[in-house]
Amino acid sequence: MSPTAARITAVDTYDVRFPTSRELDGSDAMNPDPDYSAAYVVLRGDTADCPEGHGFTFTIGRGNDVQVAAIEALRGHVVGRSVEELCADPGSLARDLIGDSQLRWLGPEKGVMHMAIGAVVNAVWDLAAKRAGKPLWQLLADAEPEWLVRQVDFRYLTDALTPDEALELLRRGRQGAAERATALRENGFPAYTTSPGWLGYSDEKLTRLAAEAVTDGFTQIKLKVGADLTDDVRRCRVARSVVGPGIRIAIDANQRWNVDEAIDWTRALAEFDPYWIEEPTSPDDVLGHAAVRKAVAPVKVATGEHVHNRIVFKQLLQAGAIDILQIDAARVAGVNENLAILLLAAKFGVPVCPHAGGVGLCELVQHLSMFDFVALSGTTDDRVIEYVDHLHDHFLDPVVIRQGHYTAPTAPGFSATMRPESIAEFTYPGGTFWAADLARQESDTQKGEAA
Amino acid sequence: MSPTAARITAVDTYDVRFPTSRELDGSDAMNPDPDYSAAYVVLRGDTADCPEGHGFTFTIGRGNDVQVAAIEALRGHVVGRSVEELCADPGSLARDLIGDSQLRWLGPEKGVMHMAIGAVVNAVWDLAAKRAGKPLWQLLADAEPEWLVRQVDFRYLTDALTPDEALELLRRGRQGAAERATALRENGFPAYTTSPGWLGYSDEKLTRLAAEAVTDGFTQIKLKVGADLTDDVRRCRVARSVVGPGIRIAIDANQRWNVDEAIDWTRALAEFDPYWIEEPTSPDDVLGHAAVRKAVAPVKVATGEHVHNRIVFKQLLQAGAIDILQIDAARVAGVNENLAILLLAAKFGVPVCPHAGGVGLCELVQHLSMFDFVALSGTTDDRVIEYVDHLHDHFLDPVVIRQGHYTAPTAPGFSATMRPESIAEFTYPGGTFWAADLARQESDTQKGEAA
Repeated sequence: MSPTAARITAVDTYDVRFPTSRELDGSDAMNPDPDYSAAYVVLRGDTADCPEGHGFTFTIGRGNDVQVAAIEALRGHVVGRSVEELCADPGSLARDLIGDSQLRWLGPEKGVMHMAIGAVVNAVWDLAAKRAGKPLWQLLADAEPEWLVRQVDFRYLTDALTPDEALELLRRGRQGAAERATALRENGFPAYTTSPGWLGYSDEKLTRLAAEAVTDGFTQIKLKVGADLTDDVRRCRVARSVVGPGIRIAIDANQRWNVDEAIDWTRALAEFDPYWIEEPTSPDDVLGHAAVRKAVAPVKVATGEHVHNRIVFKQLLQAGAIDILQIDAARVAGVNENLAILLLAAKFGVPVCPHAGGVGLCELVQHLSMFDFVALSGTTDDRVIEYVDHLHDHFLDPVVIRQGHYTAPTAPGFSATMRPESIAEFTYPGGTFWAADLARQESDTQKGEAA
Repeated sequence: MSPTAARITAVDTYDVRFPTSRELDGSDAMNPDPDYSAAYVVLRGDTADCPEGHGFTFTIGRGNDVQVAAIEALRGHVVGRSVEELCADPGSLARDLIGDSQLRWLGPEKGVMHMAIGAVVNAVWDLAAKRAGKPLWQLLADAEPEWLVRQVDFRYLTDALTPDEALELLRRGRQGAAERATALRENGFPAYTTSPGWLGYSDEKLTRLAAEAVTDGFTQIKLKVGADLTDDVRRCRVARSVVGPGIRIAIDANQRWNVDEAIDWTRALAEFDPYWIEEPTSPDDVLGHAAVRKAVAPVKVATGEHVHNRIVFKQLLQAGAIDILQIDAARVAGVNENLAILLLAAKFGVPVCPHAGGVGLCELVQHLSMFDFVALSGTTDDRVIEYVDHLHDHFLDPVVIRQGHYTAPTAPGFSATMRPESIAEFTYPGGTFWAADLARQESDTQKGEAA
């Protein structure tokens, strides 16, 4: 059987959970105790030479099983498809999944079902990039503008961006792309770090990690805020005194506030010169973000990690509600929808600074920013990708940070492949870590009852 | 054991699916073949005299299992709770469910997880109304304004509606409530019917059902549009000629269009004097709806059945994007969030005309409109509840329509209880209907292979 005859024969899922809540890594004003998790999917073909396609939805623990069930509900759309046709046009699968008229009722285009579609579509892109022998950013940067435009679903977008405008943006983006690809391979893409700023960390840990961040070459750090104003004032003062005036400090409220609170709280922290306020209020509140932005300037407003689709991003741009657009690689319906969002940002001239962290989000999203730089926006000015130093070792092709920059991946694929031994250890509840942990809890309970 | 000591001991779920796609009932431009389904939940207490609380999420088939899994993910928050405390303050459970920091990541407040919360919260209200010996509309209408305000989560709302304003609206709503309750019991609440207008029906069936609707006392009907403009022109002409000029005809595009298409298509149907255009574009597109409304007046713009939470409704009102607000009883996080939405509508002076149909949506939502009439808006002017004559027989306390009006329920509860024999027959895939159906399909496949 020739490689071109390969078909998808299996859509395997895994409920992978890491016990991160025990260290307070990732704690913020809305998420005090996340267990970083992945509803993980592997597409397998029926020929020995067909690479696997890997993808996942990031969650923070409970509900990862619901997310896995949602991915499994898509299996019938994928099994039996020609691998060659899938890879030649991932957009056609994305459209079929989004357009399933019965599943659509569960969104539309939002929440658990939409993220499940993102996991499957991203797995197809991983497969396509592996087959092409290129890292995904390069596959996208090498693609014809006409083909890229066909990968975008323009439904509900044409009042802000037409296919013709998208084509024009992509054609312009190709000018100088080869030089930028060379520069990217030499210098990488700028990163910022959230590692110093988790709410659960002491001032001592904040001080040490902020100083390390500067030493490591980062020019921006981020602090979580929003639980207690007195604490926030103290922590912002500590951070500013450690990093000095030349380093940007972003602050992140993780949706904690009403609109009025967001304005008052941000103004109260303005003396520490925050670069942006991130997620000041509900990610659904376009008009609320617009009101906050107007009131807190020159502090910039950033959002996006929980913005559920391109239609909300369109409105955030139309309403002038954000200064910084934060894509997430695994929240929307995969690469195709993020391509739409990158095009919208380019049209409106708003810089894209992706959300990352969690499990594998850094690995994925770097490819999208690198494509954006090489073949769309053409610049890294005011562009930074979030970096958090958690859980990278669980991936076969982990991100590499040098002097505050993401190094351009060279391995074929989307950097999405988790190590098989990590999946075996952290699959919930039957993996070796959780089986032992649950047995220990059971034993402790019995001892408690006996005592 | 006294009744007050009762605790919830079981959260039982059922994947109930009706094979409605075989008759093209419910077909529209986005949903050609729905199998009306319910992810159904029953709360059971540990005492013999504790009523059961019933609730559900409505879906249209595939994915109903994902919705059931989401309800099951909430079980740990409910089992062990005091029935008395739950019923005295359903809002505290609603807040705990919405606030679960790990599950929240799967939304926040949207899609599968949010609808699951709605099913559980509505089941608590069913239980509370049964214990109080009142239909839900009456329990709400009899409640103290101060208590009702505490049932509302004002997070992300205070820039449009404060608790003090809500209290004032509810206090004003009590004036004359007793007289309106009497009028409601005598006359019922106005309905309109969608039964004539499904896309899959022939012109003959449309003609017959539209004429019947007028004979039956309805003053408004609704037609599905958006698949083919020539067909829509013909069907609108047929309908208008049947019902005459005095009956309102609403048209419903079920999100089929981009903003520009919505404007052009609605204008093309304007000669038939449509009363409202429903769901002209994406339910997420607040600014899009505002643009459509501005362009198609005096045709009114209606939306809401897929609006996923109070925050989007708030913006639709703030932006002046809708003339008619369409709540759905089972899309948002239950009675508590719908209370917030009714208060927002009252504040902005926009009439509420609920979405209903499907499985059990009529049964549920009538209670909310009746409360709104008796104790909040105080009027039925320009208010109508959607009515579709499907699947009511599966409920113990089905809606009763007389002369185009919903009759006020008198049985205690939320009218949510499905007949046990219907659950046994239509549970998927093991119920008697589906087991036989799947066996028949299997047998047909084998015959086909043998032939």
